Amino acid sequence: MPYVNIKITDEGVTAAQKAELIQGVTDLLVKVLNKNPQTTVVVIDEINTDNWGIGGETVTEKRKKK
Amino acid sequence: MPYVNIKITDEGVTAAQKAELIQGVTDLLVKVLNKNPQTTVVVIDEINTDNWGIGGETVTEKRKKK
Amino acid sequence: MPYVNIKITDEGVTAAQKAELIQGVTDLLVKVLNKNPQTTVVVIDEINTDNWGIGGETVTEKRKKK
Amino acid sequence: MPYVNIKITDEGVTAAQKAELIQGVTDLLVKVLNKNPQTTVVVIDEINTDNWGIGGETVTEKRKKK
Amino acid sequence: MPYVNIKITDEGVTAAQKAELIQGVTDLLVKVLNKNPQTTVVVIDEINTDNWGIGGETVTEKRKKK
Amino acid sequence: MPYVNIKITDEGVTAAQKAELIQGVTDLLVKVLNKNPQTTVVVIDEINTDNWGIGGETVTEKRKKK
Repeated sequence: MPYVNIKITDEGVTAAQKAELIQGVTDLLVKVLNKNPQTTVVVIDEINTDNWGIGGETVTEKRKKK
Repeated sequence: MPYVNIKITDEGVTAAQKAELIQGVTDLLVKVLNKNPQTTVVVIDEINTDNWGIGGETVTEKRKKK
Repeated sequence: MPYVNIKITDEGVTAAQKAELIQGVTDLLVKVLNKNPQTTVVVIDEINTDNWGIGGETVTEKRKKK
Repeated sequence: MPYVNIKITDEGVTAAQKAELIQGVTDLLVKVLNKNPQTTVVVIDEINTDNWGIGGETVTEKRKKK
Repeated sequence: MPYVNIKITDEGVTAAQKAELIQGVTDLLVKVLNKNPQTTVVVIDEINTDNWGIGGETVTEKRKKK
Repeated sequence: MPYVNIKITDEGVTAAQKAELIQGVTDLLVKVLNKNPQTTVVVIDEINTDNWGIGGETVTEKRKKK
């Protein structure tokens, strides 16, 4: 019955990568806690780099400095 | 003062249906817990079927199998 | 497949009231969006009144003023 | 190490305003709790006014009445 | 920079199991998306079975029926 | 109408510090976005250090190494 929410920046993540994350997290919960995969829910949020901050600045700004 | 977050897949939910969910949840919190509706907040997130997983696979994959 | 998170202040909510909220929200999603109740997840978070703010002050402070 | 999620309605918030929110929240956590800004994460979600309810109705409906 | 929130029922999960979940999710994000583990945050919420609903009833009720 | 959720580790945060966070975040939203403070909600979650991971390990483990 677990619920997992993964938040990542919106930077070209493919459908195949999302599917791999969903399967990987579900397998992990089965392995570690013996959870039922059929009711394990995973939701991925892709966040615009303008809307994600770390170290007091947006990821958009951080990317420009590199 | 309650805060409610509803996450559903992004599959053609209409503005009228969203309004009905918001009113229904607010009424429920008034009825069960006598909460003040004026400060009851409801936020609906519509999630792409590529980003929603259950049973270890995405809803996009699940829909294809039907 | 919906996921609903209800946040309320931790002020003596009974197990029966929680069960009523869970059933009510699930029924609402079935009625409005024809969702499958078997995979509808509802999680209730009860928050200490010191940790809930509205209008710039904690609910603990608000309760004292009444 | 704090994580902050800010949800606001999607009504023309600029990148500069988002950057100001991110810096302001990060500074606040440093000032009040002496947190390390380098691992302080802030995520801003902008929500369509059809998907935000208060007082039992959507913000879209509320705006029309004004 | 990802942020992951895992919600599970509060049923005797050990510190070692939580550490295994945190390491496993972090490794997965490194493997699939090449994310930096040093800024990958994982938060586990353990939820009382009275506060978790599925199929319209609480997990507490579900456990009794077994 | 904003909703803000602040997650921090559960390490002796006082009620006065929580009140300062709530007032500070509310003031920031008024200043930057001209939001109405009366419907601005702030919820603080304090998370056990066993349940918070960064860099693939729990904060409990990180604290021991210092």
